[in-house]
Amino acid sequence: MQYPTQISKLIDSFMKLPGIGEKTAARMAFYIFDMSDNDVTDFARNLLDVKRNLHYCTICGNITDDEICEICQDQTRDRSQIMVVAQPKEIISFERSHEYHGLYHVLHGLLSPLEGTGPEDINIVTLIKRLRDDVVKEVIIGTDATPEGEATASYLSRLIKPVGIKVTRLAHGLAVGSDIEYADDLTLMRALEGRTVI
Amino acid sequence: MQYPTQISKLIDSFMKLPGIGEKTAARMAFYIFDMSDNDVTDFARNLLDVKRNLHYCTICGNITDDEICEICQDQTRDRSQIMVVAQPKEIISFERSHEYHGLYHVLHGLLSPLEGTGPEDINIVTLIKRLRDDVVKEVIIGTDATPEGEATASYLSRLIKPVGIKVTRLAHGLAVGSDIEYADDLTLMRALEGRTVI
Repeated sequence: MQYPTQISKLIDSFMKLPGIGEKTAARMAFYIFDMSDNDVTDFARNLLDVKRNLHYCTICGNITDDEICEICQDQTRDRSQIMVVAQPKEIISFERSHEYHGLYHVLHGLLSPLEGTGPEDINIVTLIKRLRDDVVKEVIIGTDATPEGEATASYLSRLIKPVGIKVTRLAHGLAVGSDIEYADDLTLMRALEGRTVI
Repeated sequence: MQYPTQISKLIDSFMKLPGIGEKTAARMAFYIFDMSDNDVTDFARNLLDVKRNLHYCTICGNITDDEICEICQDQTRDRSQIMVVAQPKEIISFERSHEYHGLYHVLHGLLSPLEGTGPEDINIVTLIKRLRDDVVKEVIIGTDATPEGEATASYLSRLIKPVGIKVTRLAHGLAVGSDIEYADDLTLMRALEGRTVI
């Protein structure tokens, strides 16, 4: 006897998620069967909502359900600073630390010669356009301390410095090889305070 | 800034799953946003399919999309043996080992005086009814080697033995405190071979 078809298909769906193997997926699928009808209906609707009603902010590339995201709309933020990050979820980590009050720019990726990701494959053109209005005084490169993160940082530095805008990099308070997403607030604060000109 | 509402709600849904904390749930929610539209639509449909199109077999309590499950319908199975398990997912483990060819009965729980789960709260009445037709010669208690599993085993033994049916218990080839769901095939085979009369 195999799993009923419906269970097998749900196991396949769960296995598409990061870090979920077959046994965990099976456990989750049986758990869904035992959950309340409301919870499962909500779960299905929430999945579709995230996929269909969210998109990228046309200014910074953050995830939003509006045309322009909450942070870009917020007139109290310091518009002279732009923090460049690889993914939208990293914005949440910085926001949670309450230590940064400028704007953001999401690259949606990092330069990676090995994987063939060049400057035209990530969200760099929009960033350069944002620097033209003379308001931005500093670009903080908030990429991970990985080879791709470092390569992206030095590429952006070479590109932006000639325009006369200060380019800084988060200090290596961040453990080398770790993910910004999982850093604690104190580490993020130290990284922000100790940022250096590159 | 908080997560967009849609992301927050999806995080809440993921956190309802066993073993998923807030950070893992957030990682999954952002991952959903980046998945293909087809994959997310399938995921949502598969969730609803499992909840709405599956139910319990009216004979044994296994999960099925029919009135009677595949195993109860299979005329080649040995109808003189019934293996009693706590949950439907445990049937899959025994089936995967290809060592058992009888029928099953799912209790949907175990006796637990501490949590107030008595005999009337689990699927015992139907089991007793199945024993009336004189075909069943042996009931194998396939519950975990936990206090609840042992309590259920001895309760069923006291209930069924007077009827003149042999009641056996899986051997303690199963590691004490472990889950049947995660046992390997060899361990399940040893447990089945070494079952003892109780």
